[in-house]
Amino acid sequence: MASNSFGKFLRLTTYGESHGVSMGGILDGVPPGILLDLEQIQIELDRRKPGQSSIVTQRKESDIVHFKSGIFEGKTTGFPIGFEIHNTDEKSKDYGHIKDVYRPNHADFTYDQKYGVRDYRGGGKSSARETVSWVVAGAIAKQILKDVSFTAYTHSVGALELSTEDNIDFSVIEQNPVRCPNAKKALEMEALIKTIRKEGDTIGGIVKCVISNVPKNLGDPIFEKLHANLGKAMMSINAVKGFDYGSGFEGITMKGSEHNDLFNTDGTTKTNHSGGIQGGISNGMDINFRVAFKPVATLMQSQKTINKNAEEVEMHGKGRHDPCVVPRAIPVVEAMSALVLADAYLLNKSIK
Amino acid sequence: MASNSFGKFLRLTTYGESHGVSMGGILDGVPPGILLDLEQIQIELDRRKPGQSSIVTQRKESDIVHFKSGIFEGKTTGFPIGFEIHNTDEKSKDYGHIKDVYRPNHADFTYDQKYGVRDYRGGGKSSARETVSWVVAGAIAKQILKDVSFTAYTHSVGALELSTEDNIDFSVIEQNPVRCPNAKKALEMEALIKTIRKEGDTIGGIVKCVISNVPKNLGDPIFEKLHANLGKAMMSINAVKGFDYGSGFEGITMKGSEHNDLFNTDGTTKTNHSGGIQGGISNGMDINFRVAFKPVATLMQSQKTINKNAEEVEMHGKGRHDPCVVPRAIPVVEAMSALVLADAYLLNKSIK
Amino acid sequence: MASNSFGKFLRLTTYGESHGVSMGGILDGVPPGILLDLEQIQIELDRRKPGQSSIVTQRKESDIVHFKSGIFEGKTTGFPIGFEIHNTDEKSKDYGHIKDVYRPNHADFTYDQKYGVRDYRGGGKSSARETVSWVVAGAIAKQILKDVSFTAYTHSVGALELSTEDNIDFSVIEQNPVRCPNAKKALEMEALIKTIRKEGDTIGGIVKCVISNVPKNLGDPIFEKLHANLGKAMMSINAVKGFDYGSGFEGITMKGSEHNDLFNTDGTTKTNHSGGIQGGISNGMDINFRVAFKPVATLMQSQKTINKNAEEVEMHGKGRHDPCVVPRAIPVVEAMSALVLADAYLLNKSIK
Amino acid sequence: MASNSFGKFLRLTTYGESHGVSMGGILDGVPPGILLDLEQIQIELDRRKPGQSSIVTQRKESDIVHFKSGIFEGKTTGFPIGFEIHNTDEKSKDYGHIKDVYRPNHADFTYDQKYGVRDYRGGGKSSARETVSWVVAGAIAKQILKDVSFTAYTHSVGALELSTEDNIDFSVIEQNPVRCPNAKKALEMEALIKTIRKEGDTIGGIVKCVISNVPKNLGDPIFEKLHANLGKAMMSINAVKGFDYGSGFEGITMKGSEHNDLFNTDGTTKTNHSGGIQGGISNGMDINFRVAFKPVATLMQSQKTINKNAEEVEMHGKGRHDPCVVPRAIPVVEAMSALVLADAYLLNKSIK
Repeated sequence: MASNSFGKFLRLTTYGESHGVSMGGILDGVPPGILLDLEQIQIELDRRKPGQSSIVTQRKESDIVHFKSGIFEGKTTGFPIGFEIHNTDEKSKDYGHIKDVYRPNHADFTYDQKYGVRDYRGGGKSSARETVSWVVAGAIAKQILKDVSFTAYTHSVGALELSTEDNIDFSVIEQNPVRCPNAKKALEMEALIKTIRKEGDTIGGIVKCVISNVPKNLGDPIFEKLHANLGKAMMSINAVKGFDYGSGFEGITMKGSEHNDLFNTDGTTKTNHSGGIQGGISNGMDINFRVAFKPVATLMQSQKTINKNAEEVEMHGKGRHDPCVVPRAIPVVEAMSALVLADAYLLNKSIK
Repeated sequence: MASNSFGKFLRLTTYGESHGVSMGGILDGVPPGILLDLEQIQIELDRRKPGQSSIVTQRKESDIVHFKSGIFEGKTTGFPIGFEIHNTDEKSKDYGHIKDVYRPNHADFTYDQKYGVRDYRGGGKSSARETVSWVVAGAIAKQILKDVSFTAYTHSVGALELSTEDNIDFSVIEQNPVRCPNAKKALEMEALIKTIRKEGDTIGGIVKCVISNVPKNLGDPIFEKLHANLGKAMMSINAVKGFDYGSGFEGITMKGSEHNDLFNTDGTTKTNHSGGIQGGISNGMDINFRVAFKPVATLMQSQKTINKNAEEVEMHGKGRHDPCVVPRAIPVVEAMSALVLADAYLLNKSIK
Repeated sequence: MASNSFGKFLRLTTYGESHGVSMGGILDGVPPGILLDLEQIQIELDRRKPGQSSIVTQRKESDIVHFKSGIFEGKTTGFPIGFEIHNTDEKSKDYGHIKDVYRPNHADFTYDQKYGVRDYRGGGKSSARETVSWVVAGAIAKQILKDVSFTAYTHSVGALELSTEDNIDFSVIEQNPVRCPNAKKALEMEALIKTIRKEGDTIGGIVKCVISNVPKNLGDPIFEKLHANLGKAMMSINAVKGFDYGSGFEGITMKGSEHNDLFNTDGTTKTNHSGGIQGGISNGMDINFRVAFKPVATLMQSQKTINKNAEEVEMHGKGRHDPCVVPRAIPVVEAMSALVLADAYLLNKSIK
Repeated sequence: MASNSFGKFLRLTTYGESHGVSMGGILDGVPPGILLDLEQIQIELDRRKPGQSSIVTQRKESDIVHFKSGIFEGKTTGFPIGFEIHNTDEKSKDYGHIKDVYRPNHADFTYDQKYGVRDYRGGGKSSARETVSWVVAGAIAKQILKDVSFTAYTHSVGALELSTEDNIDFSVIEQNPVRCPNAKKALEMEALIKTIRKEGDTIGGIVKCVISNVPKNLGDPIFEKLHANLGKAMMSINAVKGFDYGSGFEGITMKGSEHNDLFNTDGTTKTNHSGGIQGGISNGMDINFRVAFKPVATLMQSQKTINKNAEEVEMHGKGRHDPCVVPRAIPVVEAMSALVLADAYLLNKSIK
């Protein structure tokens, strides 16, 4: 079943496996006449790229995006933007050891059960390399919404989290490999990740995202509520286990009288437990949400598992993997957010 | 923009406002030849009905579902099932006091901004009364998946939560007004809700849901992952602020070596941090997830707010409202879960 | 599979069988703030109603539309418009004779093969009574596009057709039971239909439709071309066998030098072989197209056919049927045209 | 608005302009485990290729398809099949003469009005070069339905048509440049096209298509009727002005008693005026339909037209164009038919 498209009005359709020829996609529904900053798109891609620092996978991919269509004389034409990112570092031989083995908490078992065709060269379609196309599309979506700012950052690595006392400085985010908006906490997080890596182990974490300068009126109840679509977008990212927005899971212990965001006379609210969305529609306040990432499933240590013949076997992770996926997930979270908001933005034009 | 449909293959489309003639919907895509147990559908509706106990809204709705089509001689025909639930207790006059006032944390402000037409008779389209149609559709979906069991229950009310020591007994759920699977904790929760209500205040909580006897192979990567669609479904429910599945937000502090679910030789797993879904596809283990509900926004106490003229005004909640939405949300969580799984189940047939 | 919705942005979903409780639907995506003329909607329904004249079926349906939602204080709210039309004249007993018989050129055989559930009470879901909901929705669509005029009319009944010499006067259309824009030809057509009916036979015909004052820019290449969606809409109407627009099937014998529509300097064209659509997008000229209706399959004479046991049987049509479906199809053609154009109109707003 | 996808379950999304880098697409929803005959796909592409004979455009494109994903060890994986066809002969300079000119009956004017961005290098997105991707996807669809045969052919060129006396021999189709199933008529048609070309003019024609060995039960009423989707598919092809199936436009003059297809006891019918589809669902008989193509708009002679400044100008066609598009449209008609049937085939599996 066709299930590789995201979005209604602005729709991304993707293809590609981690060890195939290339990853790519078609972004359909971009309005005409937008002067695209192609360099900026590449910058976003570079943010996601593996091998940027010592705490992420050393897999090397140049990850240059090639555009095929939909742009003429620098401007969008209103027609589909086809694009491709070559897989330059497809060391399939790295994966011979898992050919017949189902790795725990990967998609190996479920994919093989469902499709009956095992692409054993790494994650194949289930690999997070898929998100390279999302970042390209999201970078274009950001340019559709050029006044809106999307800022995701690492809120926690394992139990190590930003506390309410920690100063939050967005300008610091891209200056440390963890992408944490507090330089001191960033160092601690980096140290933690290195320790975990030495153990051949992995760890999870939480990404927070703040979207500012959001147009009002985005989101279409009942089944295209803005936060529901953000939730689906985030839950679509590899390794994500949870999503909440505004007061989220923590808000449940509040009383209504504490939780309600009282209005200022200009329609803004004094607090923002609503997370910028009320009744499924943006109210112009900052949108903020959290995304929980599980620890990466591939370990650089021995694990017991089973193979295709239902025999118990011992396996040991090889290859180049992230001990913590959170830092590299930051641009992906932003990209998916931008796709959701741009779609809602274009949809909203129809009722004016 | 048409945004009132949910599902791809099995698609629910709804209509209705809380104080209009009726609520209703069309469930399209139900396979032919299913002998429907109509009584069971009404039982599900009754579970959701207001006025069932002293801790929920006293609004009275008989909530009888009337089927219009798609059923012939007791069996589904394969054609759309139209249905309608009349609004028998539409006391519009209860709402005169909010006609020009934007209630905090309701959809009043955003709806008025977006649509420019204010249906001031209660929540109108944004009312949780909408979910009456979801429960009807979900009850049919459950009958499509008759071997699968869906069990949602109250995990916490405010800070009062089931602990790991509390015995969980699903047979207790429907025997207490809180719908908690532990009779003792249920009494405490009930007492807490009553206290909150006396204060004219409200409180949030967490619903947990367990889906058992799940067929393998449900879910379609990349953008129809089973948990992503469950997430969207839950985030679509009124007052929901968060969703996680399996190890969820708590799993982030685990190491990969702890988190990985090791296989038994029959393909089941020794633990279930994956929550029954790997790579977006069900693996046959129990699916489990959490849903966070915020405290209800309507208070039976005074609040400052603004009106349409951007003037500050004092308002006091009237009408009949739930101090805690969680108990009545239980059947809604199950219904939306059933819709998601039944859709995935039907879609999955095409690749066999 | 959910297949009972039409349109992307403005989407009609329908339910109902000819002999069930009621027909109805949900029109989703109507912009807010439109002051609806409900009487005009009923007028359109009355145009489609059976029993209007001696040349159409004598089945009596009052066909009053009841609105359930989406309209508040006379205006659309932007939320789904639910509606219902009761089946008041459901003489199921009329159909006992066909319970186990497959009528030639009806959907009896294919429906039974596919769904395995036979609703033998007339056409069930396959009945053209379905179109009553389309006319309601189309009448609303016309009010979204209040400056656009949709005029369908009978061009031919059997071989009897309007010739190039016949004067075309749209004001005559609703003044004769055939809905032909030439009073003299209308009389001839009426006489022909009566003759056919006396024979217990039926006859086909062609409907032409002209849409005037069309906004430019409607239609979205490559797969939402305006004429392709009009084509699908028309082919969805019961008994339709063909569709063409502009020069259509007749244009194939022209040379390009004759066929090309030369421009006036204001962008209009000197001829209109393009039928108001170029490259899938409206150019502001009149849209015109033809729709071919086959002769009605139900005859008031004996036919040989087979039953469920694959035995040859003799059957004789009973009930109340149209000898020629064309006159009653006129409002249906207009309604579906209006749905297509209103959808394209709303979609087009997003690129402004 | 995203409008470049076709199909529900099996969905083709395309990109590319005639003079851009490449054409390409993503075919999503192909079931896993199909051993693809890649050579056969290239053969279909070669059938569509320009420059095959003296009566078609001499534009030279090697038109080699490159697959990017979705195929592993020769078999489909169930994941999207990305593909690309390079534009090797992009003589943009050929088009300088039309940069500011709106060619009559092309999409130049409407595209410029709607999108405000003029890709003046030939047709850009509106070029029939788009169909190269459709043929790739259709060739895969044919392999999903490997027992079904799709045969399109030239029925008429201008007024020169196959008569009922002409012998129809499908084996002759690919042996003459016109793709007519009667060798003698083929020669006449070829001569006619050459004459027209010498005049610098163009001519239209009719394609007929016969689909044999069709599975029963394809098509989903009410709005996914098989013939309605075939109609939309055909109307989406460049230059198409009309579609009919079975008895079509000619059947309207028949009486019901002549038109009805009487059943044999095995469920087949003695005649096939229904064209293999009853009630929107295939009945297992041959599906047959006609498609009308207008004369190509680009003439090799002078025409008056207007430019962007609304001035009248004289233009003369240049470049390499088809005097009659019909012969090269044959594989496109087959490809789109295969996509429609394969989609319906996969959808139909869900109700079993």
